[in-house]
Amino acid sequence: MNKVYDTEIISVGTELLLGHVTNTDSRDISEMLSKIGINVKYHTVVGDNPERLRKCVEIARSRADIIVTTGGLGPTCDDLTKQILAETFGLKLVLNEAEKASLYEYINYGKKLTENNFQQAMLPEGCTVFHNNWGTAPGCGFEKDGKIVVMIPGPPKECNSMFRECAVPYLKKLSDEQIVSHSVRIFGLGESAVDDIFAEEMNRMINPTMAPYAKECDCLLQITAKAESEEKAEKMIEPVMKHVEEKLGELVYGVDIECIEERVIQLLSEKHMSFSAAESCTGGEIAKRFTDIPGASACFKGGAVTYTNEVKSKLLGIDPAMIEEKGAVSFEVAKAMAENIRTILGTDIGIGVTGLAGPDGDGAHEVGTVFIALAVEGETFVKEVHMGPFRTRSFIRRMAGNYAFDMMRRWLTGIRVI
Amino acid sequence: MNKVYDTEIISVGTELLLGHVTNTDSRDISEMLSKIGINVKYHTVVGDNPERLRKCVEIARSRADIIVTTGGLGPTCDDLTKQILAETFGLKLVLNEAEKASLYEYINYGKKLTENNFQQAMLPEGCTVFHNNWGTAPGCGFEKDGKIVVMIPGPPKECNSMFRECAVPYLKKLSDEQIVSHSVRIFGLGESAVDDIFAEEMNRMINPTMAPYAKECDCLLQITAKAESEEKAEKMIEPVMKHVEEKLGELVYGVDIECIEERVIQLLSEKHMSFSAAESCTGGEIAKRFTDIPGASACFKGGAVTYTNEVKSKLLGIDPAMIEEKGAVSFEVAKAMAENIRTILGTDIGIGVTGLAGPDGDGAHEVGTVFIALAVEGETFVKEVHMGPFRTRSFIRRMAGNYAFDMMRRWLTGIRVI
Repeated sequence: MNKVYDTEIISVGTELLLGHVTNTDSRDISEMLSKIGINVKYHTVVGDNPERLRKCVEIARSRADIIVTTGGLGPTCDDLTKQILAETFGLKLVLNEAEKASLYEYINYGKKLTENNFQQAMLPEGCTVFHNNWGTAPGCGFEKDGKIVVMIPGPPKECNSMFRECAVPYLKKLSDEQIVSHSVRIFGLGESAVDDIFAEEMNRMINPTMAPYAKECDCLLQITAKAESEEKAEKMIEPVMKHVEEKLGELVYGVDIECIEERVIQLLSEKHMSFSAAESCTGGEIAKRFTDIPGASACFKGGAVTYTNEVKSKLLGIDPAMIEEKGAVSFEVAKAMAENIRTILGTDIGIGVTGLAGPDGDGAHEVGTVFIALAVEGETFVKEVHMGPFRTRSFIRRMAGNYAFDMMRRWLTGIRVI
Repeated sequence: MNKVYDTEIISVGTELLLGHVTNTDSRDISEMLSKIGINVKYHTVVGDNPERLRKCVEIARSRADIIVTTGGLGPTCDDLTKQILAETFGLKLVLNEAEKASLYEYINYGKKLTENNFQQAMLPEGCTVFHNNWGTAPGCGFEKDGKIVVMIPGPPKECNSMFRECAVPYLKKLSDEQIVSHSVRIFGLGESAVDDIFAEEMNRMINPTMAPYAKECDCLLQITAKAESEEKAEKMIEPVMKHVEEKLGELVYGVDIECIEERVIQLLSEKHMSFSAAESCTGGEIAKRFTDIPGASACFKGGAVTYTNEVKSKLLGIDPAMIEEKGAVSFEVAKAMAENIRTILGTDIGIGVTGLAGPDGDGAHEVGTVFIALAVEGETFVKEVHMGPFRTRSFIRRMAGNYAFDMMRRWLTGIRVI
């Protein structure tokens, strides 16, 4: 961007102030804006109250260049966002015939037709209309008095899709410069360790820039460049990306992907390989996370959740005497779980996970101890992890899943597994 | 409360503005405050920037009675919340000896001791200190110039626990009145249907009040009363609760619980019964959700994730010819899944779920079609659900889980299962 645009996101909805829903809209929009080099300086949440909303818009106008609103575009009398924004900027709301026609079409699919619904087709004069392919309420963008206003519906699915498809291209046009950003995803190093490794480069570099961020159980390094064209920005990023990948080596599991299981699906699909999982402490989380991704069925055949010793024997045929001798949380049981699920389901890879997610221990191990096994033809790898008793149950379970996916990723790319 | 306290929550942290983390702190605090009758009017998020934070605090002081801050209490130079709030209200920061001693203790557990850490023991003069049992940075509360300020650390676990344990009791003391609130959890009716049923009562009632709220896949009705004592408030709620439970009947799955699986765990534990699950389209989600709850091992033995037809036969012994004839998404396969997992694992209840979570269909059924079976001794119930193709994959999977849990809840309480 040739100009720095400070942005404020105003989310409108009393349900947010009551704590009944989480404000994921502001998070999603902030992430998308940061990737195109627009700085979000404030988030504000205000209820469905015209006076308070009006004052919040006034404050935003005084301190931001871009105002993004979410929510309050629907057909009920609570939905006041357009009216207030139009008033504040001295614009009239006018009926948009195309949106009106599209509402009729939607309603023809069996929805009830009430007069209120047509309020949704009333939009600020001269605005750019963002048609909503994910719901009924259109959004819009306009420029007035040196400020840019973007209004997007509140339901998270609509907000996320419309912001990506309509608002991002609209805002990108404001600039003579193009911003390109790539996220290098890292597993096995914390944010501060990444910070240490690249401290010199981060201090020195102005364009491109790099910055590490912590995610729940892994972290990422974002590399961003500005140039007059996307191609030039990509070219500027290339050597930095190469440097980062060389320095971090096998700790990088992917670029511009959302999670490690996404990378594992890519690798399994490329190699036409399949996997199965036998889970104890993760209790189905590995299967669940993998099958969250559409298309998982091409490489995931199934799994066993073996929460008790008895089930480990019944479903996986593990010798009860061995479990008795070694303990359910052991190297040997993890190994047998991985090997047996692989054999029973006839998959290329078998995963076995057993450990203590807490809060209660088993007397023998500290909470946070997990054994993760990966069985392939002729070989089984077992990793022992101690996350420590200060971690939450959900962290331990999620992290155990990440270790399992990372072992698969490593084996599938031919690098050291443990 | 004898006075209505308007509250603003200011969350401090650049990571929120970059979209790297979701603002769950404001959600959690809002929910806790609404339960004690304190109205949250605004959420604000601002980065780790002293000037902008100062201005946000000024705005909050002008429009709210209670200012709650989260974040910015740590030991690094970014952490400026206490300094800015103390300055704004004309208070000095003074060393708190007890907190200093406690930092030493924490550090004795092997943490590094740097001078910065002791900044955390510097607190506004005369404040009430909130000791942090979940991390190092203490929080605090003070009253000045007719305003109440509460500061809490930002990490979600610390924020949630400290707000509940320290800030809620601190704020409750401000009032001569006591607020009691109960949430009636409902499955099988939407928020607007609940609204319709109780429209007359909601319009008429002033104290207690009732209000419906939508959750992701179910909804709740919140009943709140104010009185001079908790006992009196409870007494006022009693007849309303009775009325609601009579009107909604078997649609109520619990009061003051977080999710339907929590209720199922209660019921199974009371009856010393166990369950197992065979999952196709939910892909481990039912097992995962159940085992998210500590103590699930007392009633959940395990399950099978049978994502392919082959695995349905291999792990559950379902006749491949039957799957071929009826189709993987069918009444008969769901029934066999539930019955076979129950028999194989020897549990009291067996659950079987098969359906289409999308985005792709199977040619025979619409996306959103799910069969859910519950097998008990001598009887199997199968429910066929059509959620429609407009739902997301994650909604369909979660909702299928809710149906399974609700069927268990119904059977365990002796009411009509389907």
